[in-house]
Amino acid sequence: MIVEEFFEDYKIGFERITFGRTITEADFIIHAGQTGDHFPHHMDAEWCATQDFGQRMAHGTLVFSVGIGLTASTINPRAMSYGYDKMRFLKPVFIGDTIKTRASIAEKTDHPKRNTHGFVREAVEVTNQNGDAVLVCDHLYFVERKTPLD
Amino acid sequence: MIVEEFFEDYKIGFERITFGRTITEADFIIHAGQTGDHFPHHMDAEWCATQDFGQRMAHGTLVFSVGIGLTASTINPRAMSYGYDKMRFLKPVFIGDTIKTRASIAEKTDHPKRNTHGFVREAVEVTNQNGDAVLVCDHLYFVERKTPLD
Amino acid sequence: MIVEEFFEDYKIGFERITFGRTITEADFIIHAGQTGDHFPHHMDAEWCATQDFGQRMAHGTLVFSVGIGLTASTINPRAMSYGYDKMRFLKPVFIGDTIKTRASIAEKTDHPKRNTHGFVREAVEVTNQNGDAVLVCDHLYFVERKTPLD
Amino acid sequence: MIVEEFFEDYKIGFERITFGRTITEADFIIHAGQTGDHFPHHMDAEWCATQDFGQRMAHGTLVFSVGIGLTASTINPRAMSYGYDKMRFLKPVFIGDTIKTRASIAEKTDHPKRNTHGFVREAVEVTNQNGDAVLVCDHLYFVERKTPLD
Amino acid sequence: MIVEEFFEDYKIGFERITFGRTITEADFIIHAGQTGDHFPHHMDAEWCATQDFGQRMAHGTLVFSVGIGLTASTINPRAMSYGYDKMRFLKPVFIGDTIKTRASIAEKTDHPKRNTHGFVREAVEVTNQNGDAVLVCDHLYFVERKTPLD
Amino acid sequence: MIVEEFFEDYKIGFERITFGRTITEADFIIHAGQTGDHFPHHMDAEWCATQDFGQRMAHGTLVFSVGIGLTASTINPRAMSYGYDKMRFLKPVFIGDTIKTRASIAEKTDHPKRNTHGFVREAVEVTNQNGDAVLVCDHLYFVERKTPLD
Repeated sequence: MIVEEFFEDYKIGFERITFGRTITEADFIIHAGQTGDHFPHHMDAEWCATQDFGQRMAHGTLVFSVGIGLTASTINPRAMSYGYDKMRFLKPVFIGDTIKTRASIAEKTDHPKRNTHGFVREAVEVTNQNGDAVLVCDHLYFVERKTPLD
Repeated sequence: MIVEEFFEDYKIGFERITFGRTITEADFIIHAGQTGDHFPHHMDAEWCATQDFGQRMAHGTLVFSVGIGLTASTINPRAMSYGYDKMRFLKPVFIGDTIKTRASIAEKTDHPKRNTHGFVREAVEVTNQNGDAVLVCDHLYFVERKTPLD
Repeated sequence: MIVEEFFEDYKIGFERITFGRTITEADFIIHAGQTGDHFPHHMDAEWCATQDFGQRMAHGTLVFSVGIGLTASTINPRAMSYGYDKMRFLKPVFIGDTIKTRASIAEKTDHPKRNTHGFVREAVEVTNQNGDAVLVCDHLYFVERKTPLD
Repeated sequence: MIVEEFFEDYKIGFERITFGRTITEADFIIHAGQTGDHFPHHMDAEWCATQDFGQRMAHGTLVFSVGIGLTASTINPRAMSYGYDKMRFLKPVFIGDTIKTRASIAEKTDHPKRNTHGFVREAVEVTNQNGDAVLVCDHLYFVERKTPLD
Repeated sequence: MIVEEFFEDYKIGFERITFGRTITEADFIIHAGQTGDHFPHHMDAEWCATQDFGQRMAHGTLVFSVGIGLTASTINPRAMSYGYDKMRFLKPVFIGDTIKTRASIAEKTDHPKRNTHGFVREAVEVTNQNGDAVLVCDHLYFVERKTPLD
Repeated sequence: MIVEEFFEDYKIGFERITFGRTITEADFIIHAGQTGDHFPHHMDAEWCATQDFGQRMAHGTLVFSVGIGLTASTINPRAMSYGYDKMRFLKPVFIGDTIKTRASIAEKTDHPKRNTHGFVREAVEVTNQNGDAVLVCDHLYFVERKTPLD
């Protein structure tokens, strides 16, 4: 779905919550395959059983990719993903955990040089089935203004 | 390979460069599949041909995941991935582009509360076959000290 | 997104058109892999070059699965997919073709025995980048009524 | 294997039964990935646990694709898959269920306009490990006659 | 299909030729993913362009796995795959090459200790679209005798 | 990592042991998909439950591919994989088993015709979590000499 939103349309505090997504053993295999990260933390159940966490843990990049992917529900032709800040891994995600993502508009700032665009910062929190945050980050969007600043 | 390195062992300026990895159309399909982000920017060649960039572009999370995955070559049992800062998408990655990652130790800081650990910041730059940076970020590690601070 | 719609809410003629999806060689490989159908029509470019169609053709089940998957944009908790009728393959889909799906509400019928539900028939047409229909079918939904029939 | 069969060679009542295929969690992930249908019915174990069916259910298109794929054992150069009729989902397929397909020649009809070909209708029934039918449909083939009709 | 064959039923010189299978870029990605072998020979088109072979080459294990997989057409409940001998990589397989496999019964030998079984050696040759052999090996089967040796 | 080693540098008895890799149900599905081998031994849990081994067994080519892939840790530009000898399947690998590979330099032989190269034979043993060998083979490398033989 396409929903056109200009910089002026973003409301601080607007929040959306995604569907849930169970992270499966297959996801571990596919993500290790794609990234080439076959570290035993993700791939060796025997070794993991001897470690503190006791079982295979999802790649940070997997949790991030799926957590962000869940938010990709509508396209805004006036906005562009600009980057991410302050990504932190708060808890491990294990096989069978179900994550969902809460994203809320946290801040709007003028572009330092261009009066036609601004930055929107969306606070992203990925939680597991217990409600614990497993990953947080700030998603930055570069967004067109309906009316350029003077 | 396991290479044990304590906080004291990290040298500012130490740099490593990974092998290259060609990003294929199959990677787009697999990553869209895993994340659920089937936006036409990544999946619809016809629509992309009508846009400024002219062709399908890789998901930001794909470039990040593969770019970071390339650096996963040795395991340091004394370090833990803590998070990422200042991730920026500088150029699009297209089908057939080959990326590689340069990572250099940029900063070491004490932990504010724990004298047994410190933070290491690794500056990460993912470049394409033309040498252009496509993604940069800071990778933060939480690393054990050999000798606790007084 | 969840959009609750009762039988009474469906309007004959309501139409939706999906995003496009380029069918890639990777899709052929993944679908052959999942279904076990490795027939040379889909997997052997050399043999296909000697046939009338001249190149590898997508599995019918691939075109159907992706074509229908494209329509899975909103969840209606009052409706259930009941089945499909009159699925016809009108043209082959080749590697690199981009398909999209048009779905329009075509008919509403009472359930023969249950006054609490009815059937909605959605006419589905999957087209390629030239606007040619490649697959058509009727999608049947079993939908709850807001108010039971007398 | 190639087995040439003309319209005249098809015998009403001829039946074949395929090998079994266990539908795995990995199949759910791969099929959701390919089709873009990440609905919680298939992907969110936590939410499913709160629903009547209690667990994740296979996509209809997955059951259909694998069920039909199982029948792709021999190639008949005189026949072409023409379409499907009366596809009905009779029971959900859950992770770990094993399906197999029974296909029997049910009807042969003349082509309304072409005396060189006819239609063969194969009744397809996909069953689970309990012998319950989970999906039925009619598979239509467009088949060359050895001898054209007068 | 199940075809029961005892040791006595195997005929020296019996030969079968499989369908063809085009090896795609997606196969490289999937195989690298599964095996964890992301060497630049298979994954980095830029680097390969600077090497003698000029382009990405298939993993040996990929050619072997697909080449042998092509022969998996009938199940013989009296035989068991015992191992492989003299596997040699004769030519590289590139993206877009189409391979097929010729397998011929080359030798039958008594089991040194068990009079109820024997070994069958099948000579396997995987060729590309030019008819060049790319991989050869011997496939050994451990096969039950209909009648034990005296 | 690139480690240049000439024929003269290989030491008989040098041994390396890889990380472990848990073989998952997803691996079965992906490997069956890639190779086209959907035999019930790997894919039908119900049928397998009626057989001696009681459960689905990994494809031999899967165990081999992953077992060898685990050893692909460093690139030696002076060596080329030449082939494999005496591959034997000693025990089945089941879903959830964790394999690792031990590889030791077993033999060095002159090339019969070229004084610039020699053959190195590496004895490969893939073991499961119980320490049982599940597959053995000899990996042959064709390696350049630092100094040609007289």
